[in-house]
Amino acid sequence: MEHTPAEECYRRIEKLQHALQEQNLDGALILYRADLFYFTGTAQQAYLYVPVTGESLLMVKKDFERAQKESPLRHVVYLPSQRKVIEIMKSFGCYQPKAHIGMELDVLPVRHFRWYQEHFPEWQIVDIGSTIREIRMIKSPYEIDLLKQSARLQEKVFSNIAQELKPGISELELAARIEFFARRSGHQGGVRLRGFDQELFYGNLMSGKSGAVKSYFDGPTGGPGPSPAYPLGAGWKIVEENEPIFIDYVGLYNGYIVDMTRIFVIGSLPEKLVKAHQVALEIQEALVEAARPGAVCQDLYQMALDMAESSGFGAHFMGYGEKVSFVGHGVGLELDELPVIARKFPVSLQEGMVIALEPKFIFPEYGTVGIENTFVVRKNGLEKLTQFEEQIIQL
Amino acid sequence: MEHTPAEECYRRIEKLQHALQEQNLDGALILYRADLFYFTGTAQQAYLYVPVTGESLLMVKKDFERAQKESPLRHVVYLPSQRKVIEIMKSFGCYQPKAHIGMELDVLPVRHFRWYQEHFPEWQIVDIGSTIREIRMIKSPYEIDLLKQSARLQEKVFSNIAQELKPGISELELAARIEFFARRSGHQGGVRLRGFDQELFYGNLMSGKSGAVKSYFDGPTGGPGPSPAYPLGAGWKIVEENEPIFIDYVGLYNGYIVDMTRIFVIGSLPEKLVKAHQVALEIQEALVEAARPGAVCQDLYQMALDMAESSGFGAHFMGYGEKVSFVGHGVGLELDELPVIARKFPVSLQEGMVIALEPKFIFPEYGTVGIENTFVVRKNGLEKLTQFEEQIIQL
Repeated sequence: MEHTPAEECYRRIEKLQHALQEQNLDGALILYRADLFYFTGTAQQAYLYVPVTGESLLMVKKDFERAQKESPLRHVVYLPSQRKVIEIMKSFGCYQPKAHIGMELDVLPVRHFRWYQEHFPEWQIVDIGSTIREIRMIKSPYEIDLLKQSARLQEKVFSNIAQELKPGISELELAARIEFFARRSGHQGGVRLRGFDQELFYGNLMSGKSGAVKSYFDGPTGGPGPSPAYPLGAGWKIVEENEPIFIDYVGLYNGYIVDMTRIFVIGSLPEKLVKAHQVALEIQEALVEAARPGAVCQDLYQMALDMAESSGFGAHFMGYGEKVSFVGHGVGLELDELPVIARKFPVSLQEGMVIALEPKFIFPEYGTVGIENTFVVRKNGLEKLTQFEEQIIQL
Repeated sequence: MEHTPAEECYRRIEKLQHALQEQNLDGALILYRADLFYFTGTAQQAYLYVPVTGESLLMVKKDFERAQKESPLRHVVYLPSQRKVIEIMKSFGCYQPKAHIGMELDVLPVRHFRWYQEHFPEWQIVDIGSTIREIRMIKSPYEIDLLKQSARLQEKVFSNIAQELKPGISELELAARIEFFARRSGHQGGVRLRGFDQELFYGNLMSGKSGAVKSYFDGPTGGPGPSPAYPLGAGWKIVEENEPIFIDYVGLYNGYIVDMTRIFVIGSLPEKLVKAHQVALEIQEALVEAARPGAVCQDLYQMALDMAESSGFGAHFMGYGEKVSFVGHGVGLELDELPVIARKFPVSLQEGMVIALEPKFIFPEYGTVGIENTFVVRKNGLEKLTQFEEQIIQL
């Protein structure tokens, strides 16, 4: 049970206040769980009002007592109903009529937004979803420690896979065994994604050709899943010998995500796949070499793409036919954080960013090979958080 | 791998068209995964245009081939990018300028909505989230068969709990064991909720006092969860003798949810809890007796509340201190479907509704007892889908 220290929360709020000032906003009303937890240390049902200067006010609907214990903020008050937000803000002297207020309009549904427009008609509400994502993009040393704990859990989970892998086991059975080990070790389960209607259960585990099955998911792979109703990840296919077993799972402890992929095989793989896997490792190595503070995300992506193309496996890189145009993404409290190591993403790396790099090659007739690890951007380059054998793991 | 039959999809679409007509809308653009799957049989990334009359058009971004296989709709076309929606609609002769279009504004984020306003400025966009929820509220015989499959899975999962329950096991370890069994049997994992920012991982499992820990979740219980970052359900507490072990888990197969709660104990429980559990069973029985087509949800809730109060356990019913004001809820593709058996919910039951009834009593000093089962509303009353011992299960 990790409780976020007060100085962490206040430092984060200060960054938000600085951004509000730059955008000429009077304050922000935060209500999305991942952001709430980030700024307050509690994920209870609550509203955080952050004025552009001065003390923030956390109004908690449910559960108030838990939020009081979990959040180190100085002003934590009970909110009997959503309607009382302005009344309570007034009583704390932080309500201004005709204010310009930032809210998370990248996630807030229209119907909820209209409620605010109707009840707080004097407010001009502005989208600060991206502002918050940019603040969260740079992790503090405290957060990096938590990410390391997730990485340690994830390494244990991966160390345990080989002993569960037997020919004749279904993907779902193998997934069940891996998830069992993760969960008993304290994996929180639910993986948070910010993207509208994105969902992921632990990660994706596919064998052979299933590893090349595309999906709705914004990633290079998909997998058939157990049914058309839930068409992602592990399905009913039986794991066989001499096919790549693709395991792309999320480590998740105290809210913080690391992302990691390894390839297993019972027997051996065709030479082509072994070669493509080596290219993936070389791309990872080149990215690690190049990804220093100041390096530009889209240039890193282009470099990876060029390497894939000059290897002769370009057609298989990050998808086959329809591809995704990224090779890495930020992780933290959510799986789809900033930055994205992607085409047309001109952001420069900064110290404290945490990114998952995932060069992968998809072969419709065989499945998927490649690697994924989670890294911290340090002054002198990338530090790898997820340490585990990177070659194809042969059983 | 269950594929939705064509007549199912078309019957559902017809209901939507009827509702569009009643609301003087020209069409609906559906893009939320649960609704897409309901109307089309595929959960790929797609846009379904339903005109008020005539043939619907499913435009699929990713993955097109899977959607073609999964959806029985006649018009399934490839959508290279979101911007092309109107162009493709035009080429199929179903685009009208200045149309009144229904969209799922209960779930669509403001930022996405603004994209539509900007790119399709001639459209008047109207919220049909509730309309779709009302259509989905009445299940077809085909859907009820799928719900029965989920119920069979869930009964097997619950039959397996007793053998895993040992004093000294942590809640997380017990949860891991139950989830392992569910998952290897084909449980899809991810539980869909429509409510903004609601999340649930498999269900809630708490022992003793943890069962009375409140949370952000819109339910009578919560549980501490593994950390303040994920403050719901199973946590690190060790399961002990003579305390109620509360297991409220979701069965989920082919997309369809059943909800079920049972109480286990190693040893025995204080007389007070045993009595309260009996009252919960009596409330369930009375609800089953009264919940016929035509019965009004809020009357059923009031009846349950009255029974709880006259039993002397009123203060503990559906929460302690802060309570929820419902005793049941619809289930289907999502856990939080209509109707709600709640205060101020004047809807009458109809044949084909599927509801989870969950009378529960919360004792801060001991934990939670009570029952939950999933039922279909039939002509002559409720049919119980989830069959399993309802007394406190003593080990």
